[in-house]
Amino acid sequence: MANKKKILDLHKAAHGKTQIMPKVPLDTLEDLSVYYTPGVAQVSEEIERNPASVYNYTSKSNTIAIVSDGTRILGLGDIGPQAGLPVMEGKAILFKKFGGVDAVPLCIDTTDEDKIIEFVRNISPTFGGINLEDIESPKSFRIAGRLEKELDIPVFHDDRQGTGTVALAALINSLRLAGKGKGCRIVINGAGSAGFGITMQLAHYGFGNMVVVDSDGAIYRGRKENMNRFKSEIAMATNRQKRSGTLEDLLKGADVFIGASTAGAFSKDYVAIMAQKPIVFALANPIPEIEYADALDAGAFIAATGRSDSPNQVNNLLAFPGIMRGLLDSRARKVTYQMLNSAAQTLANSVGKGLRRNRILPSPLEKGFSPGIVSEVAASVAVAAAKGDMARHRLTYSAEREAAERIISDYLVFENSSIPSRLRY
Amino acid sequence: MANKKKILDLHKAAHGKTQIMPKVPLDTLEDLSVYYTPGVAQVSEEIERNPASVYNYTSKSNTIAIVSDGTRILGLGDIGPQAGLPVMEGKAILFKKFGGVDAVPLCIDTTDEDKIIEFVRNISPTFGGINLEDIESPKSFRIAGRLEKELDIPVFHDDRQGTGTVALAALINSLRLAGKGKGCRIVINGAGSAGFGITMQLAHYGFGNMVVVDSDGAIYRGRKENMNRFKSEIAMATNRQKRSGTLEDLLKGADVFIGASTAGAFSKDYVAIMAQKPIVFALANPIPEIEYADALDAGAFIAATGRSDSPNQVNNLLAFPGIMRGLLDSRARKVTYQMLNSAAQTLANSVGKGLRRNRILPSPLEKGFSPGIVSEVAASVAVAAAKGDMARHRLTYSAEREAAERIISDYLVFENSSIPSRLRY
Repeated sequence: MANKKKILDLHKAAHGKTQIMPKVPLDTLEDLSVYYTPGVAQVSEEIERNPASVYNYTSKSNTIAIVSDGTRILGLGDIGPQAGLPVMEGKAILFKKFGGVDAVPLCIDTTDEDKIIEFVRNISPTFGGINLEDIESPKSFRIAGRLEKELDIPVFHDDRQGTGTVALAALINSLRLAGKGKGCRIVINGAGSAGFGITMQLAHYGFGNMVVVDSDGAIYRGRKENMNRFKSEIAMATNRQKRSGTLEDLLKGADVFIGASTAGAFSKDYVAIMAQKPIVFALANPIPEIEYADALDAGAFIAATGRSDSPNQVNNLLAFPGIMRGLLDSRARKVTYQMLNSAAQTLANSVGKGLRRNRILPSPLEKGFSPGIVSEVAASVAVAAAKGDMARHRLTYSAEREAAERIISDYLVFENSSIPSRLRY
Repeated sequence: MANKKKILDLHKAAHGKTQIMPKVPLDTLEDLSVYYTPGVAQVSEEIERNPASVYNYTSKSNTIAIVSDGTRILGLGDIGPQAGLPVMEGKAILFKKFGGVDAVPLCIDTTDEDKIIEFVRNISPTFGGINLEDIESPKSFRIAGRLEKELDIPVFHDDRQGTGTVALAALINSLRLAGKGKGCRIVINGAGSAGFGITMQLAHYGFGNMVVVDSDGAIYRGRKENMNRFKSEIAMATNRQKRSGTLEDLLKGADVFIGASTAGAFSKDYVAIMAQKPIVFALANPIPEIEYADALDAGAFIAATGRSDSPNQVNNLLAFPGIMRGLLDSRARKVTYQMLNSAAQTLANSVGKGLRRNRILPSPLEKGFSPGIVSEVAASVAVAAAKGDMARHRLTYSAEREAAERIISDYLVFENSSIPSRLRY
């Protein structure tokens, strides 16, 4: 990989990664009078008369805010909003490149829960959706939960819901290869954003035999130490037998391990105590609970990590562009587990006949991922939104797949001319 | 002009007017690892270590927020944030097209003064400048004043400062043609954003013989009726003789009338009671205090309005792109009267030998305005920022003129490929 100096130089040459571009011309007096004064007043009056038409006449229909308070930036922790900005800009351009979504990075100067909620509420007229990013948990869960109730635009929490969706897709395909089903025994290590997201997504998909472990061991109904509202939710959705014990205790005979914890938390020895055809997802970032090669070496039937330099990368980028594309195009009011289950199923199916133990997910850079697979994910989200009565626009699968393909392709066509060649790397 | 249906259709075809575009490629695994994880963490750490470097490595250096609460959208009044969005999107693309500035429209769901201030404070890490827009006065003055004190990025209030700058440029050139100087008698009608902005700008430029009139007549120190903090400021900066009376009373023998009030507020008969070579700026929007042709007909030496279909359009678009360009490039902490005086002087000088009674200002669509004149305005602002110790980057006139020309030209080069031909009008 490029060294630090090279990375800084490239960021400096571009002076950041996002820019605002006009979608309409401003070359003549007529252009100015149509798109600005006095003509634009007619558009404002139309929206005042019919508020729903804001989706027709403004960029709200394709624009989201990426909101972060800088408290949990990547693995760096609480480094503040300005230091978080390069990450949010990176996320924003991924949204555009892969999903045709216009995303505005907003790194904000407050870490107070109520003030973050008020902030998002205040910007909601301008945006068709919100992506909460890199806000420390469990504060982020409370913020997302309250905003979901208050706002009429979808609030997506990628650290939780994106991760949950991609992990579910990876699990669906792994179990297909292992010949196992929803009754398999799953142990999840970690109850932060990713662990909580994965657990709740899997529970809503129908996995009934899960235990979540945190630094105090298994989480179960009635546990007294180190609980909060979200761990109680986990306890309600998992561990029917109220098992206690350490990670190692729980792994005995388990079919699946999913790590959303810290580097090295999973020992090679653990693979041997699991059931036959053990599945090991080590998703800690940037260094997994166990390296891909070590897991296979120890006997894992399938291994996956968050790393791009091993096969089977569990990467949010596989999900968030398509999910947000579908949410925007259906003008959705909320994100639901049903939509995300549907997105995960579509993502899993997209691997098709190429499904192998070292290829349980597509790669975001492979031909056919965007706009192809992204548009399928968008279509499945849009259909689920319509079915769940969460869509202002009720779209069929094929209508949304085509719309998404067109929007993303439209961007890709003129992308090449918009990026100076000196910044191509 | 296009009719309402055509205007709505064009807005609908484009689904709004702004989009977010990547400035860097995302085609390879290496691109992803440089511009997103894991490489971007190096950039975040660098900014955490050295906060000033956020200007080098992020889009903060070229990005502003256009903030409106929707309370005074054009001539439409309080129509709310969503109905204000088309106007702010229009403003945003003008910033890009004419000044190479990336502007994010943020129409917000609160009209409370303290909450608007808190909102802007919260977004300030992300932006290099703020443009307050279409917020009702005098609330907007209080908001701008408090933000100027609290923030370390410039807060520009176009309705006040942009209008003040362009009106000053127009006045400089009009007086040049009339052979009059700073001692001329000026009557300003209206004490809203525009009236206040023009008055204070002219006062700081050195005009010492002004009276401002509102619905209760002349404003003077000691007036009791219908005053506020800002009218008191006006009273302190004008009307040394504490004259009272109606607009008509004050106009007797005046050299200059500047209207920032309402349609039809200036009667044709008033021209005759003014001094020789009367100058009449009727800036009410969209319908002026007196039409251009009527003012000339009544004997005005020079007339100007806000309308694009008459000569001498006093148009903020002549000022705000260059002012913001200069503020961003000098990484300014504040906007000052000195910067705006300097911008107005440069704008006035730009007309050069073409100065005529029907050409006191350039047109934003003439060849040479952007990037040429805009870059000169930017350079004069940057030099004033350096002189006033308000610049993090101290730039010379020629350095900033060249930088601004390059930034704006870079945009114009690939603009053509980025706008679909079906939206060219």
